[in-house]
Amino acid sequence: MAVLQPILDIAELCFLHGIRHVVISPGSRSAALTLAFARHGGFKMHVAIDERSGGFIGLGIAQETRIPVVLICTSGSAVYNLAPAIAEAYFQQVPLIVLTADRPPEWIHQYDGQTIYQSGIFGRHVKKFSDLPADYQHKDSVWAINRLINEAIHIASTEPSGPVHVNVPIREPFYPTPGEILKPSEKVRKITKARHSSVLSSETWHELLDEWDSARRILIAVGQSRNEPESWRSLYKISEELDIPVVADCISNLPGNVNIIRHHDLFLSHEKTENLRPDLLITTGLSFISKELKQFLRRNPAVMHWHIGEETLLADPLQSLTRIIPVSAAYFFDNLFEKIDYQLFVENSEPDNDSAYLTSWLHHEYLAGQGQETYTAKLSTLNDFSMIDSFIKLINGSYQLQIGNSMPIRYVNALGENLENVTVRCNRGTSGIDGCLSTAIGAALVSEIPVYLLIGDVSFLYDRNGLLVKPLPDNLKIIVLNNDGGNIFRMIEGPSGVPELETFFETKHGMNAKRTAEDAGIAYFSIKEFSEMSQVLNIFNNTSSTALLEVFSDPAENKRVWKGLKAFVSEKL
Amino acid sequence: MAVLQPILDIAELCFLHGIRHVVISPGSRSAALTLAFARHGGFKMHVAIDERSGGFIGLGIAQETRIPVVLICTSGSAVYNLAPAIAEAYFQQVPLIVLTADRPPEWIHQYDGQTIYQSGIFGRHVKKFSDLPADYQHKDSVWAINRLINEAIHIASTEPSGPVHVNVPIREPFYPTPGEILKPSEKVRKITKARHSSVLSSETWHELLDEWDSARRILIAVGQSRNEPESWRSLYKISEELDIPVVADCISNLPGNVNIIRHHDLFLSHEKTENLRPDLLITTGLSFISKELKQFLRRNPAVMHWHIGEETLLADPLQSLTRIIPVSAAYFFDNLFEKIDYQLFVENSEPDNDSAYLTSWLHHEYLAGQGQETYTAKLSTLNDFSMIDSFIKLINGSYQLQIGNSMPIRYVNALGENLENVTVRCNRGTSGIDGCLSTAIGAALVSEIPVYLLIGDVSFLYDRNGLLVKPLPDNLKIIVLNNDGGNIFRMIEGPSGVPELETFFETKHGMNAKRTAEDAGIAYFSIKEFSEMSQVLNIFNNTSSTALLEVFSDPAENKRVWKGLKAFVSEKL
Repeated sequence: MAVLQPILDIAELCFLHGIRHVVISPGSRSAALTLAFARHGGFKMHVAIDERSGGFIGLGIAQETRIPVVLICTSGSAVYNLAPAIAEAYFQQVPLIVLTADRPPEWIHQYDGQTIYQSGIFGRHVKKFSDLPADYQHKDSVWAINRLINEAIHIASTEPSGPVHVNVPIREPFYPTPGEILKPSEKVRKITKARHSSVLSSETWHELLDEWDSARRILIAVGQSRNEPESWRSLYKISEELDIPVVADCISNLPGNVNIIRHHDLFLSHEKTENLRPDLLITTGLSFISKELKQFLRRNPAVMHWHIGEETLLADPLQSLTRIIPVSAAYFFDNLFEKIDYQLFVENSEPDNDSAYLTSWLHHEYLAGQGQETYTAKLSTLNDFSMIDSFIKLINGSYQLQIGNSMPIRYVNALGENLENVTVRCNRGTSGIDGCLSTAIGAALVSEIPVYLLIGDVSFLYDRNGLLVKPLPDNLKIIVLNNDGGNIFRMIEGPSGVPELETFFETKHGMNAKRTAEDAGIAYFSIKEFSEMSQVLNIFNNTSSTALLEVFSDPAENKRVWKGLKAFVSEKL
Repeated sequence: MAVLQPILDIAELCFLHGIRHVVISPGSRSAALTLAFARHGGFKMHVAIDERSGGFIGLGIAQETRIPVVLICTSGSAVYNLAPAIAEAYFQQVPLIVLTADRPPEWIHQYDGQTIYQSGIFGRHVKKFSDLPADYQHKDSVWAINRLINEAIHIASTEPSGPVHVNVPIREPFYPTPGEILKPSEKVRKITKARHSSVLSSETWHELLDEWDSARRILIAVGQSRNEPESWRSLYKISEELDIPVVADCISNLPGNVNIIRHHDLFLSHEKTENLRPDLLITTGLSFISKELKQFLRRNPAVMHWHIGEETLLADPLQSLTRIIPVSAAYFFDNLFEKIDYQLFVENSEPDNDSAYLTSWLHHEYLAGQGQETYTAKLSTLNDFSMIDSFIKLINGSYQLQIGNSMPIRYVNALGENLENVTVRCNRGTSGIDGCLSTAIGAALVSEIPVYLLIGDVSFLYDRNGLLVKPLPDNLKIIVLNNDGGNIFRMIEGPSGVPELETFFETKHGMNAKRTAEDAGIAYFSIKEFSEMSQVLNIFNNTSSTALLEVFSDPAENKRVWKGLKAFVSEKL
């Protein structure tokens, strides 16, 4: 038999653990892996010529399903092309199983083609790395392979989830002999791992409640989070019943109107806001988009700062952390609410929060929100900010919003819309522009609802090889904000003032997305005038197949609008 | 002052060491590095939006100049996008200085945007890694930065040359204050390194000459080499005067007619060739393309095998190595020739080689070469092999031939043309398809002569972002062999027999390069019929600007031709 049984059993084991999606890139050394999964029959196979895009497509799928996606590639530099997606998955905590075919170890650095140092190649950007044994015959090897794959899947899936790399040395022959039937062993051993969760001792709760009681100005801030309403049920109740403001970036996925602060980008750098400093700050989730929020909380550090989340490291981006509370947000807020509620009930008292604190936050939120709306309503040129505003106002129903890094995510965050029924995703693990398109493609491949991608021209060009995957999902709608370069460099103080702005920072390219869309066989629309906006948006939105809408804007006008917004709102505060 | 003096001095130090080319990708954290080099005035700056392509463009430049090229990128996943080019540079021994901007170490893994683990990120694929100190003020830091950059340049340039990674932590502010003049310190200390070379002791030479004398069947085989005629002067004399066959792949860059074996791909798998086994095998250079050559020499191992080259590791791809001779090929062959010549002179004797050995190699070479020519002359369909043959026969004068991996390099090697005045390059360090186009762009940017790239459709699509660099060099002529997928999978036994051939291996995409060429603003030509070939090739060849010629062929016909060639030649042996 040419294809080795333990390799076939890897596919079966992944299937038994609930894995259903595989992204492969073509290669000979990886052929046995590809065929093991392809012929298993239980997997949806996605093919990406370019491993870099393939990696992000896998990331997009796993972002949605929360079940590990298997990535398969051949040996050599192919492996390195997966690295950007793996780093993003690591910091965004998205589960991936990366199976890289390799030469057996004795052939490394022997000048024999498509061979690099694959062992441990992703460094600290994977939760675990294993080399499978090159010997597939010895019974201890067969045992080890089964154990290592079971382990890889558990480690990838355990919170904080993330990528696991398994390097698979394979000798020739790479392909099955003619007529060979590939099927897994009768009984592949699946090792289950009991579902478990972290809880806090009653002693700890006492300490927490004492601190809670000592604080009169409590603020909750939620970083990047999945859209999981059960996590936030009690958080909403706490916020509402105890008058606690909750700051939410658009990637926090926190819909609703009560006490949610969304326009902090537009007011927290204002000097009048220094009175918003909390006594107790409670954070959860991953990164914050808002630089204004981070800088405000560093300038005005909370006396006590609890971070809720099953992290293993001690991340302290606000430089004020005093307690790590390594439990899930759902458990924490559910129990906190119950305990506080009980306490208030037995004591028959009002919470002794400083109610002016919430009022002050809401006051700023109101002024900034109103200011933003007034300003936006008066805009009559075609610019990226108006475009995004119109888009969000126009699209109804449930959808997913994928947002590219750099300006698009900043625009959406500044808009501060309450996006009910919308899941917002952005690659904020590494905040790279390198895989935003492919991630959205992956997400759309497994979404029942429409997936809209708001992306800048540079990110779009960077990742255009994502469009080589076939078939592209019909529910994917791409909006390219083409301002002919990296507009963000014009927005920020430093580069906008240097003579090298256009050559080395914005990097004007003069290209549009039309031919790329045509090559990919997707419907193409464009907007060049403000007056066309709503009509074209409507047609685009009603296209039943994959579609791309390119909006051309002037980078200088975008800057005027963006600076104008900040100045206008600032005056209203 | 906003931009730190030690960063400005890095640029000056690179200049003093003779570095003249810098490839940058846009970024804010890297702005000080970009501006230090841009405003120095002594550098040619190249801008690549996509770091992956930028890395390979730098590789292409350094391949030609043999002087390190500086790559500059911002922090985060940008760094990982350089990795494929760095791995290729490492195994192909091309000098690069990789300057990656980073957050200072205290900010790693703090969820604060565009931050990954950059320290040591390229693992064993760089010759050296250093973190610059985050403190640019202390005099020991200033000393260390100067020392580390001096060291990086020396290590990158010392044979075997290769990439060196210097991670540069930079705090805000990133940009100069308005009106700030950036200029290097009066006197930046350049540490020179005396030119030195390895020589062999007379004792060693005695041992070598004894072994040489004991061998009656001596074979020289040259792997991938630069085009440096002075290395081969004495090798030619040895071969000619002592009747020694020299096996050369197309990437050996060994022109000439005397005793050079070029058609080994077409005859070494034939059973009649087992009598070509050497007593003494002398190899030099990096990898061999020819699988037939490698397999032949493993099946028929030399009794003695010397490898000449300044390697630090013990690579033994032919599994027969007995002596490492860590000197340059030029030194070795010059001295060997002198000593043998003297010996023959004083002894007044003929060399006691088995002269039938050379005759036997030349006989096979002749038959295979004739067979190939007869076969190729009769072809009348449009196919990749005929296309490459016609191209090589048509183009005169001095030029550089860049060849994509996968089938194109195999076709050129099988043609076995004696390419006088042509330098042949191919990324055989990792043999990836990921950067062939960008490498050729880099090479063309610094070449006075035309640079032709022969590349398959999949490699072309993979690396199409290389075409985003501006301006593209006029001397670059790209030939895309479009057979709608990875044709190599159809050629080899295994995948051609599986039902998944077209979906998971060839990956048919249905695309052509026309729109990509239009987007890049380069002249586009295509050939769809055999009859158009010579006329269109002529027009394409005479285009004064960057041009792309796309040749459409049928993958099944390519297979018929390729298999037919091997069978036809085999019958003639």
